[in-house]
Amino acid sequence: MTEIVLPEDTNARGYVFGGRVLSLIDKCAAVVAMRHARSDVTTASLDSVDFSSGIRMGGIMVLSGRMNAAFSSSMEVEVEVHSEDRLTGERTPTTRAFVTMVALDEAARPRRVPLLESESDEERARAEAASERRRLRLSRRA
Amino acid sequence: MTEIVLPEDTNARGYVFGGRVLSLIDKCAAVVAMRHARSDVTTASLDSVDFSSGIRMGGIMVLSGRMNAAFSSSMEVEVEVHSEDRLTGERTPTTRAFVTMVALDEAARPRRVPLLESESDEERARAEAASERRRLRLSRRA
Amino acid sequence: MTEIVLPEDTNARGYVFGGRVLSLIDKCAAVVAMRHARSDVTTASLDSVDFSSGIRMGGIMVLSGRMNAAFSSSMEVEVEVHSEDRLTGERTPTTRAFVTMVALDEAARPRRVPLLESESDEERARAEAASERRRLRLSRRA
Amino acid sequence: MTEIVLPEDTNARGYVFGGRVLSLIDKCAAVVAMRHARSDVTTASLDSVDFSSGIRMGGIMVLSGRMNAAFSSSMEVEVEVHSEDRLTGERTPTTRAFVTMVALDEAARPRRVPLLESESDEERARAEAASERRRLRLSRRA
Amino acid sequence: MTEIVLPEDTNARGYVFGGRVLSLIDKCAAVVAMRHARSDVTTASLDSVDFSSGIRMGGIMVLSGRMNAAFSSSMEVEVEVHSEDRLTGERTPTTRAFVTMVALDEAARPRRVPLLESESDEERARAEAASERRRLRLSRRA
Amino acid sequence: MTEIVLPEDTNARGYVFGGRVLSLIDKCAAVVAMRHARSDVTTASLDSVDFSSGIRMGGIMVLSGRMNAAFSSSMEVEVEVHSEDRLTGERTPTTRAFVTMVALDEAARPRRVPLLESESDEERARAEAASERRRLRLSRRA
Repeated sequence: MTEIVLPEDTNARGYVFGGRVLSLIDKCAAVVAMRHARSDVTTASLDSVDFSSGIRMGGIMVLSGRMNAAFSSSMEVEVEVHSEDRLTGERTPTTRAFVTMVALDEAARPRRVPLLESESDEERARAEAASERRRLRLSRRA
Repeated sequence: MTEIVLPEDTNARGYVFGGRVLSLIDKCAAVVAMRHARSDVTTASLDSVDFSSGIRMGGIMVLSGRMNAAFSSSMEVEVEVHSEDRLTGERTPTTRAFVTMVALDEAARPRRVPLLESESDEERARAEAASERRRLRLSRRA
Repeated sequence: MTEIVLPEDTNARGYVFGGRVLSLIDKCAAVVAMRHARSDVTTASLDSVDFSSGIRMGGIMVLSGRMNAAFSSSMEVEVEVHSEDRLTGERTPTTRAFVTMVALDEAARPRRVPLLESESDEERARAEAASERRRLRLSRRA
Repeated sequence: MTEIVLPEDTNARGYVFGGRVLSLIDKCAAVVAMRHARSDVTTASLDSVDFSSGIRMGGIMVLSGRMNAAFSSSMEVEVEVHSEDRLTGERTPTTRAFVTMVALDEAARPRRVPLLESESDEERARAEAASERRRLRLSRRA
Repeated sequence: MTEIVLPEDTNARGYVFGGRVLSLIDKCAAVVAMRHARSDVTTASLDSVDFSSGIRMGGIMVLSGRMNAAFSSSMEVEVEVHSEDRLTGERTPTTRAFVTMVALDEAARPRRVPLLESESDEERARAEAASERRRLRLSRRA
Repeated sequence: MTEIVLPEDTNARGYVFGGRVLSLIDKCAAVVAMRHARSDVTTASLDSVDFSSGIRMGGIMVLSGRMNAAFSSSMEVEVEVHSEDRLTGERTPTTRAFVTMVALDEAARPRRVPLLESESDEERARAEAASERRRLRLSRRA
């Protein structure tokens, strides 16, 4: 997902709002999860998000999401946001978020999602880290 | 902050998006922090957010924010979101978030904010929990 | 209701539009009336509104509404708008409006609303002034 | 000004908001006043507005504005709103508003506007009614 | 259709986006076609559009549309966009587009539209040019 | 660029507007051209666009853009829009557009852009077709 930062996205100082970025992260994670689950999805939680640098009006914002793990009816999607300088093309990491999405059936009840096959060591490491974050989330809720 | 959930805030199933709620949480936290710091502010981070129930179109969304702690140039603001049934008035907690805001001077550099006086045991407990979350955030960034 | 004035709310000179303020007044009055009537509501009329000062981009807009009187199926809600300087916290009254809302049942026909108990002399005075404005409105329509 | 009522303009029952109509009335009046004054303008007041019927999603909303009178630096613009059934073409008056706009110079101070020549009895009658409403507005503010 | 160009309509340099103009052209053509067909309509195609000059924030954008020709279930609507300087009133042609709209019945299938009577030589010339463009469109699709 | 079609993007029948799609095409083409030119860009023209099928609310819209040719200060960008069924993942071509963008220097005058190297027969064929469309555009303007 690629967005140009427009006046309607910015605060009075000409920087994009945190809230606008959070909203795009949520949309990007929803698309990734819908494609894995092939169903409607709803946002269950968002893990800690840090904003490391601002994005100015006129800049380009690039969001990329990928599945980290699929549990019974939930999925962890990792979204990275980079800002891209429109004159030099240089990309700066801006924020990263872990979003948990739940797949819904037509009656809006949670439904099972396909397993995610880990094919490389890196994928297995990401799936394990996601499981660990899930344990923390479940204990936090309890 | 009180919002009526309108068609423009909802997904295809008639429920408010997670991203829309996150965007309102950010705005609510910014107002609380601007009032404490009496300066511009920027979002530094958002701690884990869980969505425990959906809000339907036509419902009322009530956001309330309060300062938990002020550090040198940053502040932790706690935002609670309730949905309010427009027919019965019943309020259901929907989500809660801890947002860290940084005060900015006119050149957009971090500036000191006033201390937050804790006047009750409850306030002191909240300030301590905020300090603990801050330690986690700083170690997470490092 | 508290709003930060953002670029999307302002005209080319950086001031909030009259139309944007009117739109927030309507939403604020709808929430107050929905809470009294516990039903859907629709806007029936807006009494004269004067704008006494502009609100600049980046400023905070604070709307507060209260019930003045409840008639058979209609309610008069008074909405006050203040602008709040984000650096000094000073609040300036910006405008005040009297909005008449009608309660609707599920078939979108007017339905009775609970009476409003006046408990103080001030509340009685406001209810009487509201009745007087209602007489003017009804004669204006006729 | 002609608008199609879209989902983003409507409440949960599928009718256009009062606030959305008020916002379009303000924009329509601003265009009429800018064309008379040939300068920027700001909204000074809106006289009583009654909504006599709702406009459904998918309907057409037609706004027409005209100058009623020009005073030293202010102008009264009358805006009529009709809904137009998209299948039969039938137009129903929905609301009418009298908006007072003030012309601004480049430093945002009120500036003189050209006189409005009344050429027919009807135009003279409208200018007189506008003067009468202006007297009421000025006494209301005092 | 008349629009004031607001900050939300502009890019980082303060000029209206091409995409915003295209979106208004589509809405203007839909209103013209709905009025001719007295039914819902959908956009089938847009012929080549050239943008000959930019419109600055704060300017006035004037769109006017007219029916050029009606075929069995489709209509060609011509939309002209002018920018109007808000200080001098001078109008500059900005762009012109030929939009083909298809009338839909309640099941969203194409339905017949009334013929368009050409009453002057100019109208006949426009209807013929529209038929010629239609032949090109149909051969382009094939 | 990937978008979920939301209620705010749709007409009263639940289908995305032509105007909304045109607006996204313009944004997508601007990003591609900004990345090639490494400067601001403005839309100069849009070649004929056909809409072959509608996209329903809740669907996914996928836009992909690529450079076809670079001339002295202008670039032709081809944008393809597919709708993606969120349940089956099936993609259907919806529309295709050729957008001409002009690179601007800081004073908003046209500036030269880098040549586009054609590396395959297919790329050369696309560059030639773009040159042919450009000749047509220039003769159309003259």
